[in-house]
Amino acid sequence: MAEVAETVVAVATESNEATRWDGPRWDGLILGANLVTLTDDSGYGLIEQGALGWRDGVLQFVGPVSGLPALPEQLARQVIQAKGCITPGLIDCHTHAVFAGDRAGEFEQRLRGVSYEEIARSGGGIVSSVRATREASEEELFVQSLPRARALRDDGVTTLEIKSGYGLDFDNERKMLRVARRIGDELGISVRTTFLGAHALPPEFAGRADAYIDSVCEWLPRLHGEGLVDAVDAFCERIGFTLEQTRRVFEATRALGLPVKLHADQLSDGEGAALVAEFGGLSADHVEHTSEAGVRAMAQAGTVAVLLPGAFHCLRETVLPPLDAFRQHGVPMAVATDCNPGTSPLQSLRLAMSLACTHFRLTPEEALRGATHNAARALGLSDRGALRVGMRADFAHWNIRQPAELGYWLGGDPLLASYSSGERLV
Amino acid sequence: MAEVAETVVAVATESNEATRWDGPRWDGLILGANLVTLTDDSGYGLIEQGALGWRDGVLQFVGPVSGLPALPEQLARQVIQAKGCITPGLIDCHTHAVFAGDRAGEFEQRLRGVSYEEIARSGGGIVSSVRATREASEEELFVQSLPRARALRDDGVTTLEIKSGYGLDFDNERKMLRVARRIGDELGISVRTTFLGAHALPPEFAGRADAYIDSVCEWLPRLHGEGLVDAVDAFCERIGFTLEQTRRVFEATRALGLPVKLHADQLSDGEGAALVAEFGGLSADHVEHTSEAGVRAMAQAGTVAVLLPGAFHCLRETVLPPLDAFRQHGVPMAVATDCNPGTSPLQSLRLAMSLACTHFRLTPEEALRGATHNAARALGLSDRGALRVGMRADFAHWNIRQPAELGYWLGGDPLLASYSSGERLV
Ligand SMILES: [Zn+2]
Ligand SMILES: [Zn+2]
Repeated sequence: MAEVAETVVAVATESNEATRWDGPRWDGLILGANLVTLTDDSGYGLIEQGALGWRDGVLQFVGPVSGLPALPEQLARQVIQAKGCITPGLIDCHTHAVFAGDRAGEFEQRLRGVSYEEIARSGGGIVSSVRATREASEEELFVQSLPRARALRDDGVTTLEIKSGYGLDFDNERKMLRVARRIGDELGISVRTTFLGAHALPPEFAGRADAYIDSVCEWLPRLHGEGLVDAVDAFCERIGFTLEQTRRVFEATRALGLPVKLHADQLSDGEGAALVAEFGGLSADHVEHTSEAGVRAMAQAGTVAVLLPGAFHCLRETVLPPLDAFRQHGVPMAVATDCNPGTSPLQSLRLAMSLACTHFRLTPEEALRGATHNAARALGLSDRGALRVGMRADFAHWNIRQPAELGYWLGGDPLLASYSSGERLV
Repeated sequence: MAEVAETVVAVATESNEATRWDGPRWDGLILGANLVTLTDDSGYGLIEQGALGWRDGVLQFVGPVSGLPALPEQLARQVIQAKGCITPGLIDCHTHAVFAGDRAGEFEQRLRGVSYEEIARSGGGIVSSVRATREASEEELFVQSLPRARALRDDGVTTLEIKSGYGLDFDNERKMLRVARRIGDELGISVRTTFLGAHALPPEFAGRADAYIDSVCEWLPRLHGEGLVDAVDAFCERIGFTLEQTRRVFEATRALGLPVKLHADQLSDGEGAALVAEFGGLSADHVEHTSEAGVRAMAQAGTVAVLLPGAFHCLRETVLPPLDAFRQHGVPMAVATDCNPGTSPLQSLRLAMSLACTHFRLTPEEALRGATHNAARALGLSDRGALRVGMRADFAHWNIRQPAELGYWLGGDPLLASYSSGERLV
């Protein structure tokens, strides 16, 4: 935790109830920080010397201190004097943060010159994460995954998407999704679960991808019936599933009224972006190789482009996503960690923002919008991602002078406090 | 802070003094973690189920639990049962962590397409850091710099080098060095100060670089007289100071019996590495463009190559340091953050290790050795950087299974505890 730049200046008691303020008392009011509201389509929406008030988990006031309708002590039970900046809580809209084991050994082997083929032959790669995740008990999987989610939270994340996809059978996919839900309860953050049964072909289905997709489509309604699925994703790639297989998963998803998203066009243009757009999907993710036609389809469907600079960095990729086309066609860009053991062992969304600035040349403002407002859209959430009256009181308070610092620093610990639905997390 | 993987199992009292152990009682003994000793020239020097005992700030025992000479409770006043890995405390041997202001605005301008020239014309670049640092009081400079040093400490650093070089006059260079010393006292870490008066030409000396070097050489003995200088550095580059000017600084340094190091060959081969080797210097830093002849000179002089992947990353450089030549000639390689506001706003040495693996293809073992053993050499310290009886009890305890994880994860918070001279820091 960085320097504490806040002090509680007043905790009201019943005896000094409001005399001039007739509305219901707010639960909290923070005064003096710069508010980075992101309420307009561009610009930080900065309010200097701002005041942020909330009640019952919802923002009641977002404006300058000078615009408050009464004295702070009359307005809220707790009044906090603050410096620094307050942004919407960060939203990590693409992670695989639940897994067992790690792939540090494989990372080391590769740097010692062992080839991908040799590593795969000796049981490395995603197969090793599947094996470790299957072998772990639900409790063990929770214990191993929790510190990653906590690290993300302690760096400003208040909403976290977590995918399944290392179980690859009904029981183990279910185990992963249950662990994801439990992480949300444990850490006080919003967790959105995504069923990614179509992540990879499990060994027992080798050569029978279509049969595996049958199983995935059969598991989906059962998992949904247990309340474990907020959205459905697939890995559509030459080394993953075909467009046709992905389409079958999407049709099964649509039948349940659930939204889709897709790992699309990461290594080649597989027309994945266009497919997810056809289904009115929330997001197409990675999208390094998406064509202009794919971008146009996304724009029409309102599908968000989720940029994952951590994988780009770790894989030392060189082909950038079509950023100018996204900008030109008005496709919202989100930024996420892709936290996963193989290609992006990244546990900081701020660091993903920094990597997006350095590798993709996003402006710090685009990176912040991508980790808040546009990330909320990529999860189908319209109640967060900006500081506006009526939205959830999800926000992060930073020991920084200006919002660009969130994309500028590498590492460090600028988070002073964060709140989810008005409850303090950090 | 990650999951706490340690518990105090026994705190001895006077009544159960050793019956079989005749030596003096140790202050502390940690049992059960894997020790990453780095005591040999290559390999982690891993001791599984290790025991680490210390007294009066010095390691007394480094070996397997099974090799302890008596029962733990007899050996030490405090016995801690642990899991995970223990490494030498990390050593950040090249930072500019003391400065006022930041350059996030400039970072943002560049990403919005403003050219370096325009930024320089409007007072940006290093000049803006010099201005902010001069304007800050000593107290304000301390307050602004402390969180960066704390972030480095809280990520495993127990020894931290800090350079001057944003004051560029006697009083302000002195102010920076005093703040560096105070940071060490405040955080309980070892701070090594480096006088970098020859960092840049201050505006008041425009066109009079030789006269400025005269001043630097005149300030040096005065600062040294106040105990503020552990080593001397310069920025030898086409856009910095010439070889001849650097030589004059080095001669003034040698006259005081102080060691030299050098920002060498970062942007072009300026034969800086050979010069610092000629003076038996501790390190040549950056060294992206060092020639084979320079590498040979470093090898002969025992000069360490300090790799700074943060600046390489932020500047999107493409020319790698001559890593194979360093390996071939036996030049020890260190890894440091270069924490500075312009080209490397990096506040995590672990992240520098990760960047060294990804950008420079160092193995995780080379990166760890570079941030411990070889970093100690780059500071002229032979009492730390490995876990060996007789060395300082500076160590870091991590919630990881294997040491390669220190270079593998990006972000996260794996540090469980750290100790400087046997005193717990984190
Ligand atoms: Zn992914
Ligand atoms: Zn430097």
